[in-house]
Amino acid sequence: MAEKITPRATDYSQWYLDIVLNAKLADYAPVKGCMVIRPRGYALWERIQAGLDGLFKETGHVNAYFPLLIPESFIRKEAEHIEGFAPELAVVTHGGGEKLEEPLVIRPTSETVIWAMYKRWIQSWRDLPILINQWANIVRWEKRTRPFLRTREFLWQEGHTAHATAAEAEEETLRMLGVYRQFAEEWMAIPVLAGVKTDAEKFAGAVRTYAIEAMMQDGKALQAGTSHFLGQNFARAFDVTFQTKDKTLDHVWATSWGVSTRLIGGIIMTHSDDKGLVLPPRLAPTQVAIVPIFKTDTRAAVLAFAAKLRDALSATGVRVVLDDDDQNTPGWKFSEYELQGVPARIECGPRDIEKGQVVVARRDTGEKAFVPVAEVPSRVRALLDSMQQALFERALAFRNEHTRRTDDYTEFKTQLEGPGGFIESGWCGEAACEAKVKQETTATVRVLPIEPGDPTGATCVACGKQAVRIATFALAY
Amino acid sequence: MAEKITPRATDYSQWYLDIVLNAKLADYAPVKGCMVIRPRGYALWERIQAGLDGLFKETGHVNAYFPLLIPESFIRKEAEHIEGFAPELAVVTHGGGEKLEEPLVIRPTSETVIWAMYKRWIQSWRDLPILINQWANIVRWEKRTRPFLRTREFLWQEGHTAHATAAEAEEETLRMLGVYRQFAEEWMAIPVLAGVKTDAEKFAGAVRTYAIEAMMQDGKALQAGTSHFLGQNFARAFDVTFQTKDKTLDHVWATSWGVSTRLIGGIIMTHSDDKGLVLPPRLAPTQVAIVPIFKTDTRAAVLAFAAKLRDALSATGVRVVLDDDDQNTPGWKFSEYELQGVPARIECGPRDIEKGQVVVARRDTGEKAFVPVAEVPSRVRALLDSMQQALFERALAFRNEHTRRTDDYTEFKTQLEGPGGFIESGWCGEAACEAKVKQETTATVRVLPIEPGDPTGATCVACGKQAVRIATFALAY
Repeated sequence: MAEKITPRATDYSQWYLDIVLNAKLADYAPVKGCMVIRPRGYALWERIQAGLDGLFKETGHVNAYFPLLIPESFIRKEAEHIEGFAPELAVVTHGGGEKLEEPLVIRPTSETVIWAMYKRWIQSWRDLPILINQWANIVRWEKRTRPFLRTREFLWQEGHTAHATAAEAEEETLRMLGVYRQFAEEWMAIPVLAGVKTDAEKFAGAVRTYAIEAMMQDGKALQAGTSHFLGQNFARAFDVTFQTKDKTLDHVWATSWGVSTRLIGGIIMTHSDDKGLVLPPRLAPTQVAIVPIFKTDTRAAVLAFAAKLRDALSATGVRVVLDDDDQNTPGWKFSEYELQGVPARIECGPRDIEKGQVVVARRDTGEKAFVPVAEVPSRVRALLDSMQQALFERALAFRNEHTRRTDDYTEFKTQLEGPGGFIESGWCGEAACEAKVKQETTATVRVLPIEPGDPTGATCVACGKQAVRIATFALAY
Repeated sequence: MAEKITPRATDYSQWYLDIVLNAKLADYAPVKGCMVIRPRGYALWERIQAGLDGLFKETGHVNAYFPLLIPESFIRKEAEHIEGFAPELAVVTHGGGEKLEEPLVIRPTSETVIWAMYKRWIQSWRDLPILINQWANIVRWEKRTRPFLRTREFLWQEGHTAHATAAEAEEETLRMLGVYRQFAEEWMAIPVLAGVKTDAEKFAGAVRTYAIEAMMQDGKALQAGTSHFLGQNFARAFDVTFQTKDKTLDHVWATSWGVSTRLIGGIIMTHSDDKGLVLPPRLAPTQVAIVPIFKTDTRAAVLAFAAKLRDALSATGVRVVLDDDDQNTPGWKFSEYELQGVPARIECGPRDIEKGQVVVARRDTGEKAFVPVAEVPSRVRALLDSMQQALFERALAFRNEHTRRTDDYTEFKTQLEGPGGFIESGWCGEAACEAKVKQETTATVRVLPIEPGDPTGATCVACGKQAVRIATFALAY
């Protein structure tokens, strides 16, 4: 740990970058706005992938791979889609030394190329549903970028499903929103608000966009996953019809849903502290670091003891490393594993061995305890479970403290300038009022919650007229 | 299985395409030369990835992710590298609606962007070795393409390692060649020749390229993996130096190594037959398909019986599906699972249930046997192991039958026009002779085998002078 981390209170934005760079999660790429995901960051992404992929497969999905390059004309087939994505496209104009007849865009999302293929694969209701997911890289030429949170290239998964009825597609849209919510809360230990986006905030080409929204430590919201009911929009644009059970012809119904490497940014900004990264144990690539403390004459004995401990932990399924490096001091190693966000650290020296105990230190609270050697595996597993739960509860308490109900625009603005957080306010349902708030405060409607608050008696925070919905506003990443 | 498969004897090339398309492994993408990897093909790739990734991690490697887009100037920094890759580049000239200041190429391989990053990460011998692998998509604007074997976009892994000494880098190069050989033989059941490439055939930018070469059913060779000793070429091009243990400054030593979705083409062309795909059980996404045989009145009983069987197999770790579809006949299903290459099929009807037995059919040999229900899990596992071994042995026997030793150019040409295969011939070591053979026959030196044949008394197949090496020639994909 050569560099220092800027404290959150001093500069939250710089603190975030310090964590990303010093914990070696990512680095800036030579091309502006792109990043390199370093091994520690990628190991976390691999854990996220494994967890999500398991949930996708449990819900009947299979993986496939569609092409990176899409004919420019495809992107133009769905009117709202091109309007949304045109400003962000990267365009390939030359291949193999020659100018291409038609420019190709690098996928900013894959609906268009996938629906061009679904047209070939779907003839009858027997071919439905199609429940495909893809793990892939995506390029969107964003202007303001930040590692993990918004980069010109990012990694994600995108599910694209095709159904015979609107009801089935709606059910799938909500099922996947539920999967995202479950993953956020149970794996990432991040409480999320689930809801529907307003028309102004929905995906370009969707009928309805659902999202999960998380609250970061600086009072700004982070959209952590979206699930879209696409209706028949893409089926119409690509002329994908099927023969129904009763022999009529209908357009196919669609959904799409995705989460990205942005989740890593969400984990950092939900749990970490001024010492470095804090990772939920369930996703931490390394859950326990054993730091042996020895001098030349005690080295062999301590390392042998530590190796046995490592093997005992490993045998119970704990992801553990033993740091037997001779170059760095134990103190240096303690700081390093704190920076890396390893949930538990075990210290053991000659005296501990004599007493048949070790010190177990917990990353989030800093608590230390002496633990008899025989109890280490069970105590460590309990600690990891307890820390997973504690991180979620701490984040939930923070979110609750940072959620305010008001219809008063002055209070609304004061809240935004101060602690931030979610603001639940009445909304008349007019796009103009939503736009006014956005223009004047930069706050947006994050979601209209799935279980809506009762708008009786509430007034629109922007125009003062009677509210039809309680909307959740926030500043957002 | 609506379409028929062209027999291999009629048209091997068409047979290959029929397998790929009818077994739904892949489909043609809208952009020429690109493919869509369909769920069945991707499931196979996932198994390949899991197997290889395990071997990479066992040998100390970690995964990371580097950017898709590389400044064009980077590709030009290593003289041989740009010469090799310039004709195949896809170039991004516009982003976000504006012309880019410098064109970006889509990675055709990642040495250049990775070594630009290694320059930042490596200062001292303490930073070495770096043992990084990346799973990624690659674009090379090839003229003649064929699904899996050669496509403009493909998926692969690329290892890029950095070392303090030439010896360490050489050792790594050979270690990874060994990993590829092990994976090819033990997972894919494909025997491979390991050896070094001639200068004419080596990777653009390598000091030495090692490869594994497999023999396909039509007598043509397939390069199935390469491992490159890059020397200090990329370190020099990107000015990557480090402080050695004795405080001097040296350029870093490098390797890179990769295999791609082309392996799927190799599996198809090594094992499959006129009925469809044949998959090695270790990689088959589905190892056993249970086809219940029933009428309306026996449906419930047969399905209950079949479900118990499925659960029993699944509990022993066998990847099994129960096909309880009511629409298709058992006969249709038998053909379908043969087409898909499922290694074992279990048939069970009311009479089998009475007798407490089922029929187990093996995909490669077509053998069928009655097996008592209680023995099904153990017998199926034995069958899968035995089939894995048998596929390898059959492929090895085929390769041995298709390997010929001759220094006579007329015989050499007759062999190429007839059965093809590997031809071991004397070579004087001159590039001119290698080029002459290639121009006149299109055969190339596939490898100079790692354990070289004794050239004593051998003469160069092209010029008749004394040979310095026995080289392995073949026509190749």
